[in-house]
Amino acid sequence: MPLGEFGLIERYFSRRCGRGDVLLGVGDDAALLQVPPGQALVAATDTLVEGRHFLPGAPADSVGHQALAVNLSDLAAMGAEAAWALLSLSLPQPDESWLEAFASGLYALADRHGVALVGGDTVRGPRVVTVTALGFVEPSQALRRDGARPGDALYVSGWPGEAAAGLEALRRDPAADPGDRLVRRYRYAEPQLSLGRALRGRASAAMDVSDGLFGDLQKLCVASGVGARLDLERLPVSRALERVHDRAACEQLVLFGGDDYELLFTVPAADVPGLEAGLGSSPPVHRIGRIEAETGVRCAREGRAVALTGGGYDHFA
Amino acid sequence: MPLGEFGLIERYFSRRCGRGDVLLGVGDDAALLQVPPGQALVAATDTLVEGRHFLPGAPADSVGHQALAVNLSDLAAMGAEAAWALLSLSLPQPDESWLEAFASGLYALADRHGVALVGGDTVRGPRVVTVTALGFVEPSQALRRDGARPGDALYVSGWPGEAAAGLEALRRDPAADPGDRLVRRYRYAEPQLSLGRALRGRASAAMDVSDGLFGDLQKLCVASGVGARLDLERLPVSRALERVHDRAACEQLVLFGGDDYELLFTVPAADVPGLEAGLGSSPPVHRIGRIEAETGVRCAREGRAVALTGGGYDHFA
Repeated sequence: MPLGEFGLIERYFSRRCGRGDVLLGVGDDAALLQVPPGQALVAATDTLVEGRHFLPGAPADSVGHQALAVNLSDLAAMGAEAAWALLSLSLPQPDESWLEAFASGLYALADRHGVALVGGDTVRGPRVVTVTALGFVEPSQALRRDGARPGDALYVSGWPGEAAAGLEALRRDPAADPGDRLVRRYRYAEPQLSLGRALRGRASAAMDVSDGLFGDLQKLCVASGVGARLDLERLPVSRALERVHDRAACEQLVLFGGDDYELLFTVPAADVPGLEAGLGSSPPVHRIGRIEAETGVRCAREGRAVALTGGGYDHFA
Repeated sequence: MPLGEFGLIERYFSRRCGRGDVLLGVGDDAALLQVPPGQALVAATDTLVEGRHFLPGAPADSVGHQALAVNLSDLAAMGAEAAWALLSLSLPQPDESWLEAFASGLYALADRHGVALVGGDTVRGPRVVTVTALGFVEPSQALRRDGARPGDALYVSGWPGEAAAGLEALRRDPAADPGDRLVRRYRYAEPQLSLGRALRGRASAAMDVSDGLFGDLQKLCVASGVGARLDLERLPVSRALERVHDRAACEQLVLFGGDDYELLFTVPAADVPGLEAGLGSSPPVHRIGRIEAETGVRCAREGRAVALTGGGYDHFA
């Protein structure tokens, strides 16, 4: 028997949550939530559309993971603690095995970060998933895009480009090995919440890399009213990436690939030694350039200026 | 020239907002918001899909209004003060005149209730709109669905059924007079935020009527572990409705029509005199039955039991 809207919500999305700050969760007109005293609420929302943000036929657990991950990544970029999520799910029909897998992917990620699903909406329509993630941070400690200053060192975390390479592999062969590192990095990239929290009081600016390192760096520079120099030879290229692409293709993937949920951030030069000692190695962070007063992003290889082609990902471009 | 994603957001959705509690609005990875001390955060999210929740070709300003209104109505049902909204907009192409009208409908409603748009996402895809509305309420004063007790009087606000009649008129004739009261009630129904706030400390339970009075009353009863008797002769039937439908059709519209954003609420019998004196008349509230211990919803006409046909609106039914 097909489940009705309310059966759907009940069966898959009203697990009891362990957070004491959820005064009222799924099942009333709205959720009632307690933000800790002295903390600001942090709120982000992102939508995934089938065929645009995930491949038709993608494993449902990876769609559940991605829908939450892209939002938790925004919270990570603010240095926030993630707390709660709301889910809006539009589906052509109530496919129970798809829903069960979707919920398991979403809850697995939510549980790793202590996030409670507190509300949502299920409707019939094209396959579109919107999540709103809510968290909190002490307002003076929030990481913003607009604090980068000339002379700051520029960093990126982890191994950007792997997710884009995984997506490319799946586009070439939808039956590509699901256990392959690059495929898994595309489907199950982990938002960098603990790194974001560790950057409080250290980073002068931060954002997450969702649309590609180069384009996102341009946005960070515009927000801060500065420019940047990227040292191409410093870009982190993972061994998994090197194994399947030549040097030039790797560089393109690192610069323009999205969906890794790594953090791009800047640190005042004087604080660099403390940063590298203080962060530990998981995830690694890579110093890839520096902030300059002249607006725009310039690239250099071994100190010589280089012109780039390509561009960040823009849904309406 | 088609606008890119970031141009779109900037041009239509980053109006400066006048709220001092928005520490950081549109333009960073997430919004930073200040919930007043002692208040709980109230959060709701709802999705509208073209062809399912609004008619193809619907005036864009009415879609903008509805996407926010359906969420503000959830906040009204909690007795909350509305404060902020996040918007996720999926569109097949960046149609500037559509966007301009959509934004004007959304902002007109937001401005009437002091709500600031603080973030969002625009993506290319089927026409689907998700809004998350955020507000706050003193936790002990929040209106919930689960507080109705046997003997409580049952009320509904305003003139339910008018929106459904407006939708019917538009289905018969998409060029129906846009100034017609029923058409306007469907397209621009007003969420009952001030009534919701006035019900704090008065109503034992409340919810908004979004899927039809009868079906929503069933949900309220299930949440409270009670039943109800509906007195059909007490159902409010507006003059606009009577003018175009016979008595039986009016009753069906009032019982099963959605989208009016009226409030359904219960009041302890002893508090009824105080309620009716204290609320004023805008919107009017109508006493339509009472809560009983026996589960289920029963209907009576002039004291005689009546069986009903029909049912609430369920997106996957």
